[in-house]
Amino acid sequence: MRTHYCGELGSGQIGQEVVLCGWVQRRRDHGGVIFIDLRDRVGLVQIVFDPDRPEPFARAEQVRSEYVLRVKGLVRQRPDGTINPELATGEIEVLGHALEILNTAETPPIHLDSHAADASEELRLRYRYLDLRRPEMQTRLHTRSRITRILRRFLDEHGFLDIETPILTKSTPEGARDYLVPSRTHQGSFFALPQSPQLFKQLLMMAGFDRYYQIARCFRDEDLRADRQPEFTQLDIEVSFMDEEGVMGLMESMIRTLFREVLEIALPDPFPRLSYSEAMQRFGSDRPDLRVPLELVDIADLVKAVDFQVFASPANDPEGRVAALRLPRGGELSRKEIDQYTQFVGIYGAKGLAYIKVNDWAKGREGLQSPILKFLTDDAIQGIMTRTGAQDGDLIFFGADKARVVNESLGALRVKLGHDLGLRQGDWQPLWVVDFPMFEYDAEHRRWVALHHPFTSPKETHLGLLETDPGACLSRAYDLVLNGTEIGGGSIRIHRPEVQRQVFRLLNISDEQAEERFGFLLRALRYGCPPHGGIAFGLDRLVMLMTGAHSIREVMAFPKTQTAACPLTEAPSPVDESQLKELGLRLRARP
Amino acid sequence: MRTHYCGELGSGQIGQEVVLCGWVQRRRDHGGVIFIDLRDRVGLVQIVFDPDRPEPFARAEQVRSEYVLRVKGLVRQRPDGTINPELATGEIEVLGHALEILNTAETPPIHLDSHAADASEELRLRYRYLDLRRPEMQTRLHTRSRITRILRRFLDEHGFLDIETPILTKSTPEGARDYLVPSRTHQGSFFALPQSPQLFKQLLMMAGFDRYYQIARCFRDEDLRADRQPEFTQLDIEVSFMDEEGVMGLMESMIRTLFREVLEIALPDPFPRLSYSEAMQRFGSDRPDLRVPLELVDIADLVKAVDFQVFASPANDPEGRVAALRLPRGGELSRKEIDQYTQFVGIYGAKGLAYIKVNDWAKGREGLQSPILKFLTDDAIQGIMTRTGAQDGDLIFFGADKARVVNESLGALRVKLGHDLGLRQGDWQPLWVVDFPMFEYDAEHRRWVALHHPFTSPKETHLGLLETDPGACLSRAYDLVLNGTEIGGGSIRIHRPEVQRQVFRLLNISDEQAEERFGFLLRALRYGCPPHGGIAFGLDRLVMLMTGAHSIREVMAFPKTQTAACPLTEAPSPVDESQLKELGLRLRARP
Repeated sequence: MRTHYCGELGSGQIGQEVVLCGWVQRRRDHGGVIFIDLRDRVGLVQIVFDPDRPEPFARAEQVRSEYVLRVKGLVRQRPDGTINPELATGEIEVLGHALEILNTAETPPIHLDSHAADASEELRLRYRYLDLRRPEMQTRLHTRSRITRILRRFLDEHGFLDIETPILTKSTPEGARDYLVPSRTHQGSFFALPQSPQLFKQLLMMAGFDRYYQIARCFRDEDLRADRQPEFTQLDIEVSFMDEEGVMGLMESMIRTLFREVLEIALPDPFPRLSYSEAMQRFGSDRPDLRVPLELVDIADLVKAVDFQVFASPANDPEGRVAALRLPRGGELSRKEIDQYTQFVGIYGAKGLAYIKVNDWAKGREGLQSPILKFLTDDAIQGIMTRTGAQDGDLIFFGADKARVVNESLGALRVKLGHDLGLRQGDWQPLWVVDFPMFEYDAEHRRWVALHHPFTSPKETHLGLLETDPGACLSRAYDLVLNGTEIGGGSIRIHRPEVQRQVFRLLNISDEQAEERFGFLLRALRYGCPPHGGIAFGLDRLVMLMTGAHSIREVMAFPKTQTAACPLTEAPSPVDESQLKELGLRLRARP
Repeated sequence: MRTHYCGELGSGQIGQEVVLCGWVQRRRDHGGVIFIDLRDRVGLVQIVFDPDRPEPFARAEQVRSEYVLRVKGLVRQRPDGTINPELATGEIEVLGHALEILNTAETPPIHLDSHAADASEELRLRYRYLDLRRPEMQTRLHTRSRITRILRRFLDEHGFLDIETPILTKSTPEGARDYLVPSRTHQGSFFALPQSPQLFKQLLMMAGFDRYYQIARCFRDEDLRADRQPEFTQLDIEVSFMDEEGVMGLMESMIRTLFREVLEIALPDPFPRLSYSEAMQRFGSDRPDLRVPLELVDIADLVKAVDFQVFASPANDPEGRVAALRLPRGGELSRKEIDQYTQFVGIYGAKGLAYIKVNDWAKGREGLQSPILKFLTDDAIQGIMTRTGAQDGDLIFFGADKARVVNESLGALRVKLGHDLGLRQGDWQPLWVVDFPMFEYDAEHRRWVALHHPFTSPKETHLGLLETDPGACLSRAYDLVLNGTEIGGGSIRIHRPEVQRQVFRLLNISDEQAEERFGFLLRALRYGCPPHGGIAFGLDRLVMLMTGAHSIREVMAFPKTQTAACPLTEAPSPVDESQLKELGLRLRARP
């Protein structure tokens, strides 16, 4: 029905007759002539209808925004002075010879120009088919398609097989709540939608497929705080006979290829690496944003003996932490700004935000300004100044509390300061975090929980620690962090049944429970399971970062709202009593 | 961990030290030497352990079937007389220098040799990770991965965007039963799993994406007669501004590319086409297997007046059909075989299977043999002989009943005869079936039903028939048939709201019901919907045909059983009362 896309026309087509199909972006009548900006997937082009040709001109007069047109016309150079350098096709225009109105349109309930993003998200989702017409959304989904294409090509070239795993399956143990699907043929029983294909991909390794990948839909019935969706997409990868160096090397290479081809960005080779403990120490986070050059510095040893319990108490607590965060030229911060940051760290449980302003260190204690100065000894002050390397004009923030609170609050503060004050260095900072502990102790429930998932292998040399000191046992897990966002996580898996049982027991999963929930995995491990490992990337997040979108909802065609509903189709919706009956279910009365 | 795959070694590696990883296919001790066939994804290779090297030899003695090994060794030419031409690596063997047992294995509950397919399907599915180790299953899933790669590449090259549509969505109107997913945040409401992305892909066209594809998971909660699965995979495609010629041409080209690259088969260019009515007339089916050269011939006009109600009654019934099927050299069929075919057509509701054996037509009526001969006039016999072109030695079968019964029974019989008697011509016979009616009349419920789905467009010139004669109104649908299996179906869709409403009304969907179920589609049609159409291919079936498998379960990694259960994970399974409570549900008491 067409010879070209609107947006691909240029001076190369001057003198050609073309046929175009698209939507009316706008119509202007000017000097007895009608100008129509016609839009398609590729871009916009200006069509001119002249009263010389009365038939198409008369039709052009009927045209409104978002009408669907088919236009035949002659590409010509725009007259001098009317060239539009803002527009890719701005050098030319099309003189309309024929016009067919393929469909009409009512006035759209959301604007399709640059103000569209101002419409409420509810409205944008209800009329998603209009919202998606905006070039911004077109570009994002176009880029998403390119990204998956490049990832697939890379994996294909490296011998990975694309294998589909079930959506209707058994509850998977990822910790979040499952979506359940009632079975009609087995009334009273339920399928679960997978939170990830974790166990299936391990089974595929046991089946000898050697290298597997899948762009897999995953499901979590969580409360949608933050930027979560009930269904999301994961690039899921597993390999046999490869260690963590092999997996990380290959995945780095894949991500570098992706950034080079999509964004023309050369990511570092190799990616930097940090151990979990160093990341927590220096950045208070296991997914630090390395674009922000601020770092936490431990000062507990300097303040153990000061007469200031806010510092001394956590400094003497084995689970406590006292850390300083030096902000170069932070002395310019106003009292009000400091108050706002104090509120900010309160979100993470910090009870306050101590600070020292360094006005003129040559004057010693007198050259500093701080409400806590009076509590600190000269030695402590000297130690802090030396260790943080503070200069005149700087500000030093302090965190002192349980280590978790200090890490979370100062870790978040350093990123916030970096963003607020424009301290970011470089656009893209990838990072591997490695040497994670196998377990974290949940003091409240007095038990060990898995830091990754229960199929993650301990380091070979740490196997003995499973018995003697589980908290010291490190795993073979690795997370890929980009600009402070975890975009991928994986590990070498346990491939020996006795190690798997030992880990289950440590996690308070009895042999009986293990058999009931993971019996098929334990059985499979007995029949010749190869050493294997893998990784999963959050595709939505990766696309969000690469397209500069602010939410994963902006890179999905039909996302759900924060209450897990779809304003477009009005799903979820009530069903007939007969359907429930077939499933052997009834609704509970509302409390 | 390795330098090569086992199955890729050959004379090119002679003299090289290699490292291999894989599974023990078998171990033989022969003349004081240990031979191990080591298997990986690519193939088998023979490893030899010599008592000269006591350490690896001692380890090799412990090895059992399905143990996982890492072997370092030297590739060498096999001695004369021991070359195995059956094996791709049969020219060489690897002299083992070092052996690491990466994992042990218990004796597998199913054999992994050629007898494995004899194990019950239940057992094969329970130990699917073992079943999948068999080269046959490896090859099928490998081919499946290649097929999707080639399809994706073709579509990428033709400007199609891969866009994901929701799995948690609203009930889709494909006629089958939906799988439901209870919502926790909206208690009493349910998502449905999509039977296809039909409405979303149409919305993507309205959103201006122009060319969409997705390898999409689809769900139907049906009773699993025949070769159906609760979840299956569809290659889903939609384009804007393209007519049926455009869609069919592009899709043909894609399928030809696929067959050329995967099977080195040149499919015809273009594919043959048949109208629905001609397909029914000549083959009694809208998905005829054109490899079978037998055809139905109408003879109602010849037997309208005979004194044989079995023929005369349907011949005079406007809904009846009387047809003949000539089987060349069918005179050799025994009485018993004919009885079996009579039983066979009974499955399709035929009350009998009349026939005439042509022994010696030169003798006229005397040269024929048939229980019904006495009822037929000379003219009728002459007419039948002429019209079927029967020769001496042939057999002519007859069907006489409602057209539906004749079509289904003789249609199935012609394929069965073709297969039984080895009459098939050519390996691959693709065919487009076009010019489908929009509607079929459901006499029982006295209403029109859509032959495809309610979004299929009528032919432009038939729009008037929607009012005057719906039964005569043809649609813009097209089905792609391969060897008698429908592998794809699609249509140009309705893009005008008033036509969509008219079709809904004809299908007995009131404006109110339409608003409730498809309100979002009707609304979307009002805001500038482009002309569009598409197609969906049953990927599982296509892969099944291309790999020569006998069931779609043989080309899926983890299929369900005929009762929609997974013997491996034991899904579906009971859930905790607390989970039901969260969803606002309770189980009904068993009746």
